[in-house]
Amino acid sequence: MSENVRGKVEGDAQKTMGTLSGLASPADLKALSVEQLEELAEEIRQLLVQKVSATGGHLGPNLGVVELTIALHKIFDSPEDPIIFDTSHQSYVHKILTGRGGKFDTLRQKDGISGYTARGESEHDWTESSHASASLSYADGLAKGFQLTGRKDRNVIAVVGDGALTGGMCWEALNNIASGKDRNVVVVVNDNGRSYSPTIGGFADNLARLRMERSYDEIMEHGKKTLKSMGWVGERAFEALAAVKEGVKSQLIPTEMFAELGMKYVGPVKGHDVKSLLHALAYAKNYDGPIIVHAVTEKGHGYAPAVNDVADQMHATGIIDPVTGLALSKSKPDWTSVFTSEVLAAAEDRDDIVAITAAMAGPTGLAAFADQYPARFFDVGIAEQHAVTSAAGLALAGMHPVVAIYSTFLNRAFDQLLMDVALLNLPVTLVLDRSGVTGPDGASHNGVWDMALTSIVPGIRIAAPRDGAQLSELFREALDVSDGPTVVRYPKGALPQEHQELMRLEDGVDILHYSDTDSSLLDVLIIAVGSFASLALSATPRLEEHGLNITVVDPRWITPVQASLIGLADDHDLVVVLEDGVIRGGVGSLIAEALSAAEVDTPLRRLGFPSVFPGHATRAELLTEVGLDPDGVVSSITGWLDGLMVDDVVDGAEG
Amino acid sequence: MSENVRGKVEGDAQKTMGTLSGLASPADLKALSVEQLEELAEEIRQLLVQKVSATGGHLGPNLGVVELTIALHKIFDSPEDPIIFDTSHQSYVHKILTGRGGKFDTLRQKDGISGYTARGESEHDWTESSHASASLSYADGLAKGFQLTGRKDRNVIAVVGDGALTGGMCWEALNNIASGKDRNVVVVVNDNGRSYSPTIGGFADNLARLRMERSYDEIMEHGKKTLKSMGWVGERAFEALAAVKEGVKSQLIPTEMFAELGMKYVGPVKGHDVKSLLHALAYAKNYDGPIIVHAVTEKGHGYAPAVNDVADQMHATGIIDPVTGLALSKSKPDWTSVFTSEVLAAAEDRDDIVAITAAMAGPTGLAAFADQYPARFFDVGIAEQHAVTSAAGLALAGMHPVVAIYSTFLNRAFDQLLMDVALLNLPVTLVLDRSGVTGPDGASHNGVWDMALTSIVPGIRIAAPRDGAQLSELFREALDVSDGPTVVRYPKGALPQEHQELMRLEDGVDILHYSDTDSSLLDVLIIAVGSFASLALSATPRLEEHGLNITVVDPRWITPVQASLIGLADDHDLVVVLEDGVIRGGVGSLIAEALSAAEVDTPLRRLGFPSVFPGHATRAELLTEVGLDPDGVVSSITGWLDGLMVDDVVDGAEG
Repeated sequence: MSENVRGKVEGDAQKTMGTLSGLASPADLKALSVEQLEELAEEIRQLLVQKVSATGGHLGPNLGVVELTIALHKIFDSPEDPIIFDTSHQSYVHKILTGRGGKFDTLRQKDGISGYTARGESEHDWTESSHASASLSYADGLAKGFQLTGRKDRNVIAVVGDGALTGGMCWEALNNIASGKDRNVVVVVNDNGRSYSPTIGGFADNLARLRMERSYDEIMEHGKKTLKSMGWVGERAFEALAAVKEGVKSQLIPTEMFAELGMKYVGPVKGHDVKSLLHALAYAKNYDGPIIVHAVTEKGHGYAPAVNDVADQMHATGIIDPVTGLALSKSKPDWTSVFTSEVLAAAEDRDDIVAITAAMAGPTGLAAFADQYPARFFDVGIAEQHAVTSAAGLALAGMHPVVAIYSTFLNRAFDQLLMDVALLNLPVTLVLDRSGVTGPDGASHNGVWDMALTSIVPGIRIAAPRDGAQLSELFREALDVSDGPTVVRYPKGALPQEHQELMRLEDGVDILHYSDTDSSLLDVLIIAVGSFASLALSATPRLEEHGLNITVVDPRWITPVQASLIGLADDHDLVVVLEDGVIRGGVGSLIAEALSAAEVDTPLRRLGFPSVFPGHATRAELLTEVGLDPDGVVSSITGWLDGLMVDDVVDGAEG
Repeated sequence: MSENVRGKVEGDAQKTMGTLSGLASPADLKALSVEQLEELAEEIRQLLVQKVSATGGHLGPNLGVVELTIALHKIFDSPEDPIIFDTSHQSYVHKILTGRGGKFDTLRQKDGISGYTARGESEHDWTESSHASASLSYADGLAKGFQLTGRKDRNVIAVVGDGALTGGMCWEALNNIASGKDRNVVVVVNDNGRSYSPTIGGFADNLARLRMERSYDEIMEHGKKTLKSMGWVGERAFEALAAVKEGVKSQLIPTEMFAELGMKYVGPVKGHDVKSLLHALAYAKNYDGPIIVHAVTEKGHGYAPAVNDVADQMHATGIIDPVTGLALSKSKPDWTSVFTSEVLAAAEDRDDIVAITAAMAGPTGLAAFADQYPARFFDVGIAEQHAVTSAAGLALAGMHPVVAIYSTFLNRAFDQLLMDVALLNLPVTLVLDRSGVTGPDGASHNGVWDMALTSIVPGIRIAAPRDGAQLSELFREALDVSDGPTVVRYPKGALPQEHQELMRLEDGVDILHYSDTDSSLLDVLIIAVGSFASLALSATPRLEEHGLNITVVDPRWITPVQASLIGLADDHDLVVVLEDGVIRGGVGSLIAEALSAAEVDTPLRRLGFPSVFPGHATRAELLTEVGLDPDGVVSSITGWLDGLMVDDVVDGAEG
């Protein structure tokens, strides 16, 4: 197999698709020889580079599992034997082998195929969430279910990376899988030594050692040779070995985590060698009980630009030149880079600032911090729970930790935020990148839940900056809070235009706009959360054309609800809360609660994300779909007028 | 040491308190001899039995750590060396040694000492949450902080049970602790083979094996003896052993999880032998780097009624006779027992019903299910994340899983509920016991967040039964839902009086009361959630005396919001939502969102729990404190009338 498909990509890719084009379903793999499977691997690798370079996507991880996925489908009988891909960004090869190779032009696009497994696409896909470390739990449940329905002959396969194994869910699951001695769970560890970045911690060190471990047979062989060199041979040497073996019991097998849990372990297996993989997986299929297959793979394998990418071996790319691997679209200044600057500046000013990531230093903007302040930087692995509670420990020791995390992954650490941080009033700042609607990564990458979720926490203070300047300002304000948790949340992508406030009220609320007419039908207060300030301001001129007086405010801090918002609400005829998050329990309701407690009964309407899971499409497409664009805002607000104006006219008649 | 303090408890306890009464702080332990420490252990054990039998509390766990806690305080320098108790229900001995022995009459009572560590009580208490498996993460953070502040000489000790180690957080933390080679974290595993009930899984089996493991020295000794019996002695035998040792490298040390992670391991240590404990802990103190001390203890040690309690070795007791250990208060029929009956009945009717607990079969009412349907019952350990996602796996295999869990512990599995269950529309029923305000267990045992939290999940259906009859009915309705998750939530304790509905509306909403006068000032709709139906009905007569027309409805299903509630709200002058949960994002806001979407602007007020952490007191005391008793409800509602009646009078003048 070539180490680099560069040359071939430049040629006519269609010509080389001989084996692949003959495949209708994974069942067709059964008839292929090892050589044909190797050829197929080559074709798939070319297809991946060609297609993913045009759409963007998780290129590195998929290049690393080409042979593994082929071997899995050759040996097992999907979907009868479910193959669960942990996180499932590495399921492209699986998609290609299950009839979706022709749809890769639509990858991650509206109405196209998902970047993760998706049940609507194929009976071969069993799960959908892209949150790491869950596959083993699914597998445990499926195997229990198959056992109960008399089908324990069905194998359940979980394909999990070494990075995902640093997540606590995997530990919980392995503990249970191991005790199901009569259930056929095959845990395939796809060990490339990395998550986004190199996998950290004692567990990773252990895996690294394991990769170089001599097998049981090799060890016995070594012992025999040593004894022989001492003049002991044959029966006597065997007895000597047996005597010590007896003394050490079963401890001559490789000492590793999995065997400790009571699970059969096979490995390490060369993860790009089809023959080795077939052999190991066939063994696993025939083995009765839970078993681990440890495959050592290389992220980006076979594609030099990925292999040579020291940052993350092209974990996820935008649109790139397939030959050079270089990005074709220049990236614009984004929210993340503003955070990077601010956290560096803060660290320079204050020794107590430390930063924590859950295996995502690069994507969350902490890579520069890690370089400049290595002693104050902690990558805890894919372990959001530990990220938050170890931050609490750091705060108890006098630090002010900054935990930078994608909004969607904070869901994993809600209990830790509530009970380990907030209950103790500890100063931990959570920086939530990719908040709100994100787009092409699909349902489980959206950060539409964070405001509803975190605002449940007593004493928490949540900031939603409307632009880069506000991110700088609010992040610094968050670091000045010393008696409880703070959140700073912002969306994915390029920075919006900055909007200077007309006036900042004493409690920090910014007035961004007010209509200067006084002859209007109704006075409408729009409370625009975070980056939706732009949206509110875009809709305002058209609302004014409808004869409405519009005041647009940015609360900046969404908790606690500031007194000025209550006063403003009382002075208007309608309050509209516009937020880049779910309506259910969101900022609209937070403000409604404060108004109701203050006995202010101005009608309030909410414009936010409905209680559904967003699909995959661009952020703009998703927002438009649910009316969160200027047209939608204008049409919603004007649509509410009829009902309100009846009252207004009556009210007017009173006065 | 006597195996049973029964005799002494009957005598005059004061007499035996010689050593204990001389202790002002843990520093005073330094001067005591091993014999005196043993005497002290005896005195503390008596104090525990005497006091906890009178108040109720976690008797078994504390009897199991008497010697361990004494040894910890003898060796380490609290609070300079923080001792973090995981879960911290086993911190009573620590409280006694840090000057709180005289306050045990007030244990778990309003204004008394907490049943967990509490920072307000003592500088020796570092944490407060009672959720398991968090201590190692705190310890990792503290040690990192101490290192940064130049104080890495400070040891950080985490005392964690084998049960808590089944939780994923511990795995995440161990992975990080192990890689901090220059930080002094001492993980003391308090291994009694149990959480509430025996610890489960491959990990527990490994610990059990470890408990019986021969030490390295013993193994070498065995090898030597075997060789000697074969006629090989002296230098030759040594060479033979060395040869094989070389072959197996470091693998002659006990193979266990911790060493695999790269951590030094000391153990197993006899957990009730003061001398052994002192020796092991002194070694740990002097060791440079992270280290595990594995202490084997017995839950309930020294108190026969606890040791002989096969269910849970008196994990937590009510008020008991200190001599016999028998309960003095007869338990009344409670919510949990209704669930037990219903889940058994459902399992008899339907083969697809399976039940899951996270190490709490007894307290959640699943013990009988485990007995009768062992193949369909899964105890996953203290592993809420796995409980929920393995349930999703079972559902994918065609089962309808019932996950029975305390409301507060569901916080640990929010992401799994959202992404692993709801995103796939899987039929998993969560049964949340101890919902709402619970009482004496303090902040972290309260279930006031569950409705705000779970209602964020798209497509979820949440039922809050008002009484035992409704629990039966709603649980069965939940099992009939096949296209998404359901929640049935109910409080702790005795069942309330049953309230038959006057009428059930077509969409399932129950009318419990309506006033039959028509000359009232205002029509008030009280939407009473779950067990607060009783509260609403208690307040109603006095509200009617104030001239109000009162309608009381029980929505039964709080999501989705039923259309009839919107219609009813439109027909009333005020809507009051009364709920046993937090106001922030709670049912009041859920209904307000629906009303606002329907453009119904009837003023709405919320009566629920404020955004603070409840303290420890009885449930009734806590509810009264925040106005959630009949007096409070009457006073709140009548207090709102002034503001509303001004409008009403004006409205009246219009008509």
